[in-house]
Amino acid sequence: MWKSLGLNLEAHDGLLQVLGKAYSDIYLSQKNRPAGMAYLDFVMSEIHGLRIEELVEAKKQGRKVIGTFCLYVPEEIIVAADAISVGLCAGAECGTELVEQILPRNTCALIKSFVGFKLAGVCPYVEACDLVIGETTCDGKTKAYEIFNQYKPMFILEVPHMKNANDRQLWRSEVGRLADKIEELTGKKITADLLKKGVQVVNAKRQSLHRLNQLRAADPAPISGLDSLLINQVQFYDDPIRFTAKINELCDELETRIAKKEGVAPAGTPRILVSGCPMAAPNWKLPAIIEKSGAVIVGEESCVGERGTRNLVDLQGATTREEILDRIAQRYLEIDCAVFTPNPERIEHVSEMTRTYKANGVVHYELQFCTPYTMEGFAVRKAMNENSIPSLRIETDYSMEDAAQIQTRVQAFLELLK
Amino acid sequence: MWKSLGLNLEAHDGLLQVLGKAYSDIYLSQKNRPAGMAYLDFVMSEIHGLRIEELVEAKKQGRKVIGTFCLYVPEEIIVAADAISVGLCAGAECGTELVEQILPRNTCALIKSFVGFKLAGVCPYVEACDLVIGETTCDGKTKAYEIFNQYKPMFILEVPHMKNANDRQLWRSEVGRLADKIEELTGKKITADLLKKGVQVVNAKRQSLHRLNQLRAADPAPISGLDSLLINQVQFYDDPIRFTAKINELCDELETRIAKKEGVAPAGTPRILVSGCPMAAPNWKLPAIIEKSGAVIVGEESCVGERGTRNLVDLQGATTREEILDRIAQRYLEIDCAVFTPNPERIEHVSEMTRTYKANGVVHYELQFCTPYTMEGFAVRKAMNENSIPSLRIETDYSMEDAAQIQTRVQAFLELLK
Repeated sequence: MWKSLGLNLEAHDGLLQVLGKAYSDIYLSQKNRPAGMAYLDFVMSEIHGLRIEELVEAKKQGRKVIGTFCLYVPEEIIVAADAISVGLCAGAECGTELVEQILPRNTCALIKSFVGFKLAGVCPYVEACDLVIGETTCDGKTKAYEIFNQYKPMFILEVPHMKNANDRQLWRSEVGRLADKIEELTGKKITADLLKKGVQVVNAKRQSLHRLNQLRAADPAPISGLDSLLINQVQFYDDPIRFTAKINELCDELETRIAKKEGVAPAGTPRILVSGCPMAAPNWKLPAIIEKSGAVIVGEESCVGERGTRNLVDLQGATTREEILDRIAQRYLEIDCAVFTPNPERIEHVSEMTRTYKANGVVHYELQFCTPYTMEGFAVRKAMNENSIPSLRIETDYSMEDAAQIQTRVQAFLELLK
Repeated sequence: MWKSLGLNLEAHDGLLQVLGKAYSDIYLSQKNRPAGMAYLDFVMSEIHGLRIEELVEAKKQGRKVIGTFCLYVPEEIIVAADAISVGLCAGAECGTELVEQILPRNTCALIKSFVGFKLAGVCPYVEACDLVIGETTCDGKTKAYEIFNQYKPMFILEVPHMKNANDRQLWRSEVGRLADKIEELTGKKITADLLKKGVQVVNAKRQSLHRLNQLRAADPAPISGLDSLLINQVQFYDDPIRFTAKINELCDELETRIAKKEGVAPAGTPRILVSGCPMAAPNWKLPAIIEKSGAVIVGEESCVGERGTRNLVDLQGATTREEILDRIAQRYLEIDCAVFTPNPERIEHVSEMTRTYKANGVVHYELQFCTPYTMEGFAVRKAMNENSIPSLRIETDYSMEDAAQIQTRVQAFLELLK
């Protein structure tokens, strides 16, 4: 199967070995995990196995696989066309030497990573894609897609950078253009009924994550931040209906835990909200440091977290295809990505999340060279100061070279919270 | 006057001293300059003098001063409302310590500089402004404006990142929004007649620069790259009608020089096209190194150069206010800034300029942390390789620390061209 996807077998084997060890060290070593995490462990063990087989099988049956890099790509439309959406953002250093021949060294680790996974030929997801969708969010992605496009043809969606009436109009027409493109690719007419079904599937997935998030407000926390992050990462790869069912089962278990006052760490453990740049799988570096240092992460204000799942598509009163696309466009433009200006909603959401999840402190995660989030980090710090919530800004990449230094800073920060 | 503008007098005096010395070392030391450069020398000596007095006087008479940071702000509309446009991009290190308290260190020098000039209180232009216009071009500027806005209220114009039909619509409506804002600020109705006049004034300015550019195709080059860059820098500050007349006079002189085969350097001197990031005044670092190393710069593919002046507004057949605004919007969306995707026009323009100006090599100027231009630098290099034009990429900032290293690289590059 790997060969038919065009993977570099040797490099791929090497990657799997490293990943397996990291997962075992970081995840399987955790104490008091909910039993329901067994499903996630299974998914992770099969992320380059059964799930790829499922994709290959689906392709044989004529279904299309569509790769995305950003929350701004409406999954509802992909699901409506019976296609499969897979997230291609990547969270590990890979092929860096090759990447730096075609991209500046001063590029954020996430971008280098997805380009590197393609150049090194080790990502079965990107190889399985029939279409890859990019978007004009940050400069780095926008321009890197031009280069990536030479290796894998892409469709680029224009995301505006403001939210005025004419931006809404532009964005609505982009959503329409995407729907047309996906119809063309799949040969399926995306009717109002199919769109409605797509919305229901994706809303249900997001509702299961809302449920999970709400349970994390409990003290002791019923689940670790590492496990919650993993769930948020896996939602970009897994079948949405199966995933939703499994997360709801896990939430049932967490409710029982909360009733029994059982948690992953004792009540009173310092509670951290992580805010900032996305952590694509298998980027677990900072949360692992935070939780191994004796805190528990109670929320992710992140693309791989609540920023991506907060809002639902409101179908109330929408019946035609165009009306439902209106609602989808509306929902997506509520996402408070830092590329927007001004972006006060995000600062308000960070504050709100500290209250909802009773966080004692905020760690603002900044990928080096990510201009939008590092610039907004100043506004987040200011707002946290005004709220008297201690905050710590961590600027890093995917290498482990600064891990000890970050650990020292995190430990000092946690001391402050006691 | 300085006090009434709220400048920091001591810091301002210090700045003027440094600037004066740099100008004398770099500009006045040049050999065989055209006599017409005396006007530019005068303008530069009065850039923090007579020109500011003119602005203050104009303000007393009720005219408004409008600051801009980008080519995408249509000067025609400002001129139509009898307001004065001044470029606020800044080309020198200033207030860096203060800046790094509110912006990431990993920010390009141009952005740090304009924020620093404001924080240090040494820019009479920004202080004289009644309105400052920003725009959503790169992430760095877009987000830095949010911070700058806390020190000087701004109006933000949305620039799209693609050039499809719905982008044109968005951009056209933004141009309309700007015209309305300027009407509101100046209390002047921007009629079709006034707009036409604005277009004629700005077209004439750009035509004088086209004339200058064409003359630079001659060998020996009749004017240095440093002087040509200065002219392109001064056009953002000077009165457009006076400037146009003076540049046309200078071009008359250059025509005589060419007829006599007189130049700033002997025929056969290596000819360089500089391409890439803008060089705002007083950023003369790289051109000074190139020309002191024995080459002559024959063109600037830059915002402060042909990218900004290449296109004219075509009034043919446009009579109403809205029709003229259509044409203005159209003209500005032709600018091939690297924030657009895809942006093949720019690569074609670089190639075309090497032919027009008979350049022997291209130096691609990249401000460190400027993602759009550093990413596009790879495409420029590739195109130049295909054209068999040697190219050199220089990534730098405003400090002089790397000047010797850049000089060594430039000298080695020039050796290659012989």
